[in-house]
Amino acid sequence: MNTLQVKLGSRSYPIYIGCDLLGMTELYVRHIKGKQVLIVTNETVAPLYLDTVLGQLKAYKPTQVVLPDGEQYKSLNVLNQIFDTLLANKFGRSATLVALGGGVIGDMGGFAAACYQRGIPFIQIPTTLLAQVDSSVGGKTGVNHPLGKNMIGAFYQPQCVIADTNVFDTLDDRQLSAGLAEVIKYGLIRDTEFFGWLEDNMDALLARDKKALSYAIERSCINKAEVVAEDETESGVRATLNLGHTFGHAIETGMGYGEYLHGEAVAIGTCQAADLSRRKGWLTDSNVERIIALFKKARLPVNPPGELSPGQFLELMSVDKKNVDGEIRLILLKAIGEATLPIGVDEKLLQSTLESYSR
Amino acid sequence: MNTLQVKLGSRSYPIYIGCDLLGMTELYVRHIKGKQVLIVTNETVAPLYLDTVLGQLKAYKPTQVVLPDGEQYKSLNVLNQIFDTLLANKFGRSATLVALGGGVIGDMGGFAAACYQRGIPFIQIPTTLLAQVDSSVGGKTGVNHPLGKNMIGAFYQPQCVIADTNVFDTLDDRQLSAGLAEVIKYGLIRDTEFFGWLEDNMDALLARDKKALSYAIERSCINKAEVVAEDETESGVRATLNLGHTFGHAIETGMGYGEYLHGEAVAIGTCQAADLSRRKGWLTDSNVERIIALFKKARLPVNPPGELSPGQFLELMSVDKKNVDGEIRLILLKAIGEATLPIGVDEKLLQSTLESYSR
Repeated sequence: MNTLQVKLGSRSYPIYIGCDLLGMTELYVRHIKGKQVLIVTNETVAPLYLDTVLGQLKAYKPTQVVLPDGEQYKSLNVLNQIFDTLLANKFGRSATLVALGGGVIGDMGGFAAACYQRGIPFIQIPTTLLAQVDSSVGGKTGVNHPLGKNMIGAFYQPQCVIADTNVFDTLDDRQLSAGLAEVIKYGLIRDTEFFGWLEDNMDALLARDKKALSYAIERSCINKAEVVAEDETESGVRATLNLGHTFGHAIETGMGYGEYLHGEAVAIGTCQAADLSRRKGWLTDSNVERIIALFKKARLPVNPPGELSPGQFLELMSVDKKNVDGEIRLILLKAIGEATLPIGVDEKLLQSTLESYSR
Repeated sequence: MNTLQVKLGSRSYPIYIGCDLLGMTELYVRHIKGKQVLIVTNETVAPLYLDTVLGQLKAYKPTQVVLPDGEQYKSLNVLNQIFDTLLANKFGRSATLVALGGGVIGDMGGFAAACYQRGIPFIQIPTTLLAQVDSSVGGKTGVNHPLGKNMIGAFYQPQCVIADTNVFDTLDDRQLSAGLAEVIKYGLIRDTEFFGWLEDNMDALLARDKKALSYAIERSCINKAEVVAEDETESGVRATLNLGHTFGHAIETGMGYGEYLHGEAVAIGTCQAADLSRRKGWLTDSNVERIIALFKKARLPVNPPGELSPGQFLELMSVDKKNVDGEIRLILLKAIGEATLPIGVDEKLLQSTLESYSR
């Protein structure tokens, strides 16, 4: 097991990475203060891992909430089901919420913990690659709104993150690829060497080689932890983690939550951001080809859905947390391994990218 | 105008107290950074003060949300209407939310600001006595849940609080009295001298003497600001501000939100807490009589609704943020001017208080 520390002063916490962690009672117990525990999970994950987690926590007689699976359920209404359960069982401020699942469960469980009685402790147990390398690290919690993804939420840090690499034994191929999109992102925004490593080791990752996966998770988490430690609430460099996300969120919202996995939408969006970076004169044609090739190798889509017109993209992109006073701002690439801070973009250039990608 | 500083490090902010403040453009402008402004208010306050506020902010062409008036609308559903408006108008992270109204608008507007895009700045303009002396100071924001009051929320500080004493020209008698309940509370928990002043000046306050009201607001806010500066997230002394609130919240939730004004429920609850403090041997009979007499003088109810049995009270009180691992904990009085931290109470004593008060 490797332990990685996210350094945030009084809100610092460890990420445990390794195999067989779900069965280590000690990992949970050291982060639970009170006597009440609620496990939030979903219908896909519950049959796979709930019993194992319950086994470690039986001293607390945990209560459970099993939610439907999918991005379309990351809503204020479903969030309220968690509050219903907490209140029906008279949970207090010293209770601990355990979020067992992928990004949706982590984001929603974390947000429930942030808001319940104005904040209770929570533990993240990410069960997808995407959640292990991205959503469960850094304290971004929240739910979607019909008009925009992740528009309602809080910065709220967990007590710890338990990333058990055994979950890859049950993760389906599509979910594995979706996670790789965010892994590739770390290479693109700040780690050229890692990008090269990913080009060389993509086959091993897709073959679920445990050693390769562990390395990719660790290196991703190290990158993320450094960025988050520098800028917890995204007033600066943290926004670079959003490479491809403005395009990606537009796809997720525009196509209906759940149609595209988050990682799939981010893969497409990153290719769009790369195209725009080329038009700005920053990336070369061959840079862009390398990027697209790596996403393709990871079995990810690289072209936006034909259903979304450039006009619809622009409309959807006009709701984004990086925008300022209504102006669209994007993360672009100066090079492979170097991202810009959010910048306003000439509308004609943006239009060209959107048109070259529309069918 | 008097300016009082709430000292919370990087989250410090001023409370402006005085007459004619709503018309001072400068007060708003110095706390608005971006170009987008949303005013959240309700149907009662809008006809009275919205035009004045809009007049000062016309450079920003503010968007407005006018919500129905009443505690029963402090819900997740109504909160979502604020998010709808923010998103429909493409508000970004640099937008400012202005909460113009009483405690419900302040709590809900503040919580909307806390959660929208994980946090946007907001300004509190409390238009009731209760909101000026209590709910708009200290950053407690949130909404109610059918099973418990203020169970969903965040600690989130405003940019400033503008407390204009002109609002007392339009405040109805019942609202004025409700505000006085929280004013009396400050005397009871930590300011014996102020309690005496209130006994001497209650008639002037009820006659809406501006000088007396200004003094009461300032002294209340000074008390609250000191407590909040010491303990922002209620891990200790801040809980004393909750004197009478566990009983009070039970009344509000049990009778249906909106049936009792918050201050009315707190007045009754504080009399119950005083009774229990007498049973603990801390308050004398004459202490309790003095307390009840002052609430009565302020035209506040002092007896709980006959509809709620002791059993129902206990059930409702078992959902409270001060409880630990399911045990009910209360703020009691050691003397007039001295509150305890949350303490567990012998159930028989609590039962006696609940029974002596049931009809």
